[in-house]
Amino acid sequence: MANKGLARNHAELTILVTGGAGFIGSHTCVELLTEGYQVVVVDDLSNSSEEAVRRVRKIAGVSEQQLVFHKADILDRTAMEAVFNQHDIDAIIHFAGFKAVGESVAKPLEYYWNNIAGTLALCDVARAHGVKNIVFSSSATVYGEPAFIPITEDCPKHAATNPYGHTKSMLEQILTDFHVGDPEWNVVLLRYFNPIGAHESGLIGEDPKGIPNNLLPYVAQVAVGKLESVGVFGDDYDTPDGTGVRDYIHVVDLARGHVAALEWMAGRVGTGKAIGLGSIEGAPQPDGTRSGVGVFNLGTGTGSSVLDVVNAFSRACGRQLPYQIKPRRAGDIAENYAACDKARGELGWEARYDLDRMCADSWRWQSMNPEGYGAAE
Amino acid sequence: MANKGLARNHAELTILVTGGAGFIGSHTCVELLTEGYQVVVVDDLSNSSEEAVRRVRKIAGVSEQQLVFHKADILDRTAMEAVFNQHDIDAIIHFAGFKAVGESVAKPLEYYWNNIAGTLALCDVARAHGVKNIVFSSSATVYGEPAFIPITEDCPKHAATNPYGHTKSMLEQILTDFHVGDPEWNVVLLRYFNPIGAHESGLIGEDPKGIPNNLLPYVAQVAVGKLESVGVFGDDYDTPDGTGVRDYIHVVDLARGHVAALEWMAGRVGTGKAIGLGSIEGAPQPDGTRSGVGVFNLGTGTGSSVLDVVNAFSRACGRQLPYQIKPRRAGDIAENYAACDKARGELGWEARYDLDRMCADSWRWQSMNPEGYGAAE
Repeated sequence: MANKGLARNHAELTILVTGGAGFIGSHTCVELLTEGYQVVVVDDLSNSSEEAVRRVRKIAGVSEQQLVFHKADILDRTAMEAVFNQHDIDAIIHFAGFKAVGESVAKPLEYYWNNIAGTLALCDVARAHGVKNIVFSSSATVYGEPAFIPITEDCPKHAATNPYGHTKSMLEQILTDFHVGDPEWNVVLLRYFNPIGAHESGLIGEDPKGIPNNLLPYVAQVAVGKLESVGVFGDDYDTPDGTGVRDYIHVVDLARGHVAALEWMAGRVGTGKAIGLGSIEGAPQPDGTRSGVGVFNLGTGTGSSVLDVVNAFSRACGRQLPYQIKPRRAGDIAENYAACDKARGELGWEARYDLDRMCADSWRWQSMNPEGYGAAE
Repeated sequence: MANKGLARNHAELTILVTGGAGFIGSHTCVELLTEGYQVVVVDDLSNSSEEAVRRVRKIAGVSEQQLVFHKADILDRTAMEAVFNQHDIDAIIHFAGFKAVGESVAKPLEYYWNNIAGTLALCDVARAHGVKNIVFSSSATVYGEPAFIPITEDCPKHAATNPYGHTKSMLEQILTDFHVGDPEWNVVLLRYFNPIGAHESGLIGEDPKGIPNNLLPYVAQVAVGKLESVGVFGDDYDTPDGTGVRDYIHVVDLARGHVAALEWMAGRVGTGKAIGLGSIEGAPQPDGTRSGVGVFNLGTGTGSSVLDVVNAFSRACGRQLPYQIKPRRAGDIAENYAACDKARGELGWEARYDLDRMCADSWRWQSMNPEGYGAAE
């Protein structure tokens, strides 16, 4: 079945957001709804809460008809058939997937099954309904230890160090091969750097189960007193203050990047020309929309050290947060940040918010919801 | 559930052979049965014939009890549960998978689903039954354009050029990650070079559907008059006669390599020490068997040109076969052959048969079965 063009008004376009109750997914729903899209969320709630969906409706001021929620696993073909039958889906933004690095090492079979077989099952059902537009949630982890910094999209992919990272890298290849085999597949691979922050309303944010894996939710839980002090792994790296430098990006900026990717697919922004390795030229289609594989970094282009983050969060919450220097962790690198020229030039997108804003918003979410969504469920 | 040790008599060991009705699978069954193993074949017959299984029984002189056949798809968990419940499986030799390079480009979703999701589903059921010994059918395609020749197992993996090749490379990573997450997983990755030939009985051999993709079945069909002449793609490579050089290996030698891999897993041969990159030391277990990830090339170490093959086959069939020089094909490289020292030293295995023998056996199969298994079905 021929792919659906996207060259229509936003109000006429329905976007399926898998994993839409999650951290990045929920923020992306807000941006989509603000732009006037119809949104259908599919989420199995295995690592998220339906409360996030209710709050997205509240922030965007929309009804249950404009933001529809289905509790379903993307591997459940019967459920997904029903979703595609019930809604006239035009494109997919695909967030659903397991994402804990450490857990992926212990449970590789579950990670590969959920992330890879899940994506294949989703795309199989989508294709049968003429939906071949997909924006995929990839990660800077595909660069492994990067060949150069700042990392452009031309930077060669290096082996990831864990199954989570491998699933991202493999799915990039798989989705690219879909386009090669059938040029109607229109694919955007978004390589995220380190998303933090929260919506300025304080209503939605990151709600990790158990002890957080990532720096920012850890810092935030120290700020509310749930954890004692921030562990800083290594202060003898070759960086200005000796701690590791990363490219943190506000989750709302990241969410806007997904809306920009849809605009690019629709042929409304950018040239569609291949820029750098990994992209396949987005040839204009008869209806003016594009068919191709676009690869874009989504970061700020600015590196911040672990201590920068601790200090910015301390300013946000009004007290200096304690931290402890610990030994380096295996596999960590000194610094890692994005070159964002391609997204700026082609998607017309760039990050707006700085580290202080990220921490202020994160703190607002954390202090308004010390138990995450738990209390509201 | 704890993995099963293999340190028992062959007659007490039951090997599940997925894809056991196929070309390499059927020859491997013969070698396993000759060594006294119990064999259970699972094959969905999507690209093979049950007649091959009947002929394997005839060659090995065994009953339907010693070589059991189940028509089933490895993705069918209910069917696979029944197989594991009915038989006390000790190890898996996993051949099942789609293997046509060109088709994989046109149908990537089907290839990734069948090969990757299929392997994950198989391993999930196996694990639940305490079976974590697996020999995987990989390919020299994981070396891509090789960094050096002869290719040792240290040669870095390069990107394959098609989804079939990607599935092999990805499954190597996935199975390796199984071992990292749970050291009870005992994995051998066998990287095949170019299997040709047939069992000397002439009863089993390669039976491609439609026009063959690979050189040898093509040559064989020219020999029996089904095709007119052999297309030789490029005669201006930097090789002795200008045509491409590859490492052809007799399928019976390849089959013996799988039996050797089981012996290695059982700790009966080799040191289990990591030799070269890609291997993880096969640490001895309390029962003397091994746990690790072994990576071995299976080739002859000898390169033969396309014209060498045409001439050897001409000698085998008693008349000079016609060929036509055609333009080079995109993606073909000048030469590609294996270093086989690792398999020799560690598995105690080496190829016995030369190109003339391969062609003689292939010709016997082809002339005794001009319609493949078709006429017997």
